[in-house]
Amino acid sequence: MVYLDNAATSYPKPKTVIEAVLRQMESVGGNPGRSEHQGGLAASRVMYETRHKLATLLGVTDPLRIIFTSNATDSLNLAIKGILKPGDHVMTTSMEHNSVLRPLEALKESGVEVKILEADAKGMVQAKDFEEALQPNTKMLIVTHCSNVTGTIQPVESIIALARHKGILSLVDASQSTGSIDYSIHQMDPDLLAAPGHKALLGPQGTGFLYLKEGVLLQEMKQGGTGSQSENLYQPMTVPDRYESGTQNAHGLAGLQAGVDFLLRETVSAVQEKERNHIQRLKEGLSVIKGVRLYGPEDVRQQGAVQLFTLRDLDQTQLNYLLDQLYGISARAGLHCAPLAHKTVGTYPAGAIRFSPGYFTTKEEIDQALAAVQQLALDF
Amino acid sequence: MVYLDNAATSYPKPKTVIEAVLRQMESVGGNPGRSEHQGGLAASRVMYETRHKLATLLGVTDPLRIIFTSNATDSLNLAIKGILKPGDHVMTTSMEHNSVLRPLEALKESGVEVKILEADAKGMVQAKDFEEALQPNTKMLIVTHCSNVTGTIQPVESIIALARHKGILSLVDASQSTGSIDYSIHQMDPDLLAAPGHKALLGPQGTGFLYLKEGVLLQEMKQGGTGSQSENLYQPMTVPDRYESGTQNAHGLAGLQAGVDFLLRETVSAVQEKERNHIQRLKEGLSVIKGVRLYGPEDVRQQGAVQLFTLRDLDQTQLNYLLDQLYGISARAGLHCAPLAHKTVGTYPAGAIRFSPGYFTTKEEIDQALAAVQQLALDF
Repeated sequence: MVYLDNAATSYPKPKTVIEAVLRQMESVGGNPGRSEHQGGLAASRVMYETRHKLATLLGVTDPLRIIFTSNATDSLNLAIKGILKPGDHVMTTSMEHNSVLRPLEALKESGVEVKILEADAKGMVQAKDFEEALQPNTKMLIVTHCSNVTGTIQPVESIIALARHKGILSLVDASQSTGSIDYSIHQMDPDLLAAPGHKALLGPQGTGFLYLKEGVLLQEMKQGGTGSQSENLYQPMTVPDRYESGTQNAHGLAGLQAGVDFLLRETVSAVQEKERNHIQRLKEGLSVIKGVRLYGPEDVRQQGAVQLFTLRDLDQTQLNYLLDQLYGISARAGLHCAPLAHKTVGTYPAGAIRFSPGYFTTKEEIDQALAAVQQLALDF
Repeated sequence: MVYLDNAATSYPKPKTVIEAVLRQMESVGGNPGRSEHQGGLAASRVMYETRHKLATLLGVTDPLRIIFTSNATDSLNLAIKGILKPGDHVMTTSMEHNSVLRPLEALKESGVEVKILEADAKGMVQAKDFEEALQPNTKMLIVTHCSNVTGTIQPVESIIALARHKGILSLVDASQSTGSIDYSIHQMDPDLLAAPGHKALLGPQGTGFLYLKEGVLLQEMKQGGTGSQSENLYQPMTVPDRYESGTQNAHGLAGLQAGVDFLLRETVSAVQEKERNHIQRLKEGLSVIKGVRLYGPEDVRQQGAVQLFTLRDLDQTQLNYLLDQLYGISARAGLHCAPLAHKTVGTYPAGAIRFSPGYFTTKEEIDQALAAVQQLALDF
């Protein structure tokens, strides 16, 4: 099996990630932040260490500004609904995932004004697009760092700089870039940044985080037991406790910690270089297959580890099924939960096929996938 | 180590639970409900099977009425905020956990009226207490099935019957009972019921569920990618998709499935009997130790697998620390995220020590714990 669906969830996981989950489940009895006995403290320690290592990996000065969530959608909902109030104006792009578009659509009903900026044909937006759409009541802009459909890397630094200059907040959806594109939160300097743990951070499903810049006020979405200030019927205001109600997924976070350790050793820049080579090889190989059309940036340096393509005007979902059934190539067709991005690049409503290699993908596997597409192009 | 903190999170987990997580992480590459390739389908299958088995275990006719969440707090917030609107009146009890009390406290600000009924000295409430507090605008009542502080089992059937008779909704917090007390959702017939996966269901942390009775309208808290109706910027209205945005924790759910399998084989009634014997043994053993005071029901049939006690007027947190450090007894002191319950039984603000045995606890371990308390009683 050739797994080219790392943009959905990474696979395989490093052995150390699986072992860390196993060890945590086998040997640690306790609830993080709750129980004062040895097991409870061991569970708390896993959360502490994962927070600190993630901070190191991503260039976050204060680890306590990293809030654990159950996935990036959870992080994005918290960020969006914790900031926007009726009467606010928010700007975002046509390249966003439904995890941004659907919460915004829901907020429209409560009187939030939403402006969706159209990206160019390669899926790119510019700071000036946001500047032109600014309103007196603009509270925030939301932009994906790297499109899950085309891999387009947005110029987030200049967009965030604009936001800061204009006194509005910036939220970056770093779901596709975190662990795969070498960036530093300190340098990028967004107000909020969301990512999952189970994609390029190589952790288990059920993990994710939201970074919250010092000084940014965010309403919590959930209240409950935090293991702190138990006597208080009010939710504690300390960060991250305020946003981490209920028993945290220490079993999953133990695995995420091991994923972060793996990346600290291998370095994200090495991951990025390897994946970029894969994308380059895919671009070169796909572009010479008759009937294949590529979407997204031409320059691989503007692109994350995602390549979108179609083969003539065939049923792409059917082709993807054949890739899986006949050639053992696991990829994803359809709209990838991002319908406007497909409209932007011209693949709506039929969708397209997405190859997303990961750190463990080999050159030979890329060649197998190319050979399979070549064969399908001849057969149909 | 004698682990008596199963009310916080169960430990140990059955071997099969750990193996199921391991197998899922090792062999399944894919995102449930998203990717159409073999790995994606395998991830979807885990969710499907877990939902069906949980329905079998708990007496739910339609498995699709079980919504997966990240923990019971997540379930309770979804239930509470998805039902209550400004102007509504809601009734609950002083025995609730902060995962109920804190969301209600937060909702007060938006104009929800909250009535907290005082339980009796054993931690029990009655249907008539709710009946007396009914208002014309009462929308829902919320009651814990089994207190996490005293183990008191509430007469939920009569309370739910009253709610139905009066045309208001009922929400049961079954965090402490699910997998430990033999109940059937079909027979109990609540409108909503919340529970975690990592307590007596023996699953991993990062799992939980909310049962939603057919016909009950519930606003979702989060929107995002559901893998369904991707072309639509509106959140799909189908259940459970509407409430399960973002990548689901298939790694954790594989473990939960194995936990449910374990309980289907062993039966919850056998678990309940075993734990009841442990509580009986604890009651008998603790009550003859000079200076020990027990809280909660006297009759073990009115009680789940939790026993609260204090030793004279000593610092209970310090005693609990010594139990851990000197005798290897892992228990939990303090307020257990339920301050009003401690006020009700008279252990606020100092708190008390909670012993919560599980299915894997042995008689010998109970005796070890009793001997340790006996020794502390002599030493101080």
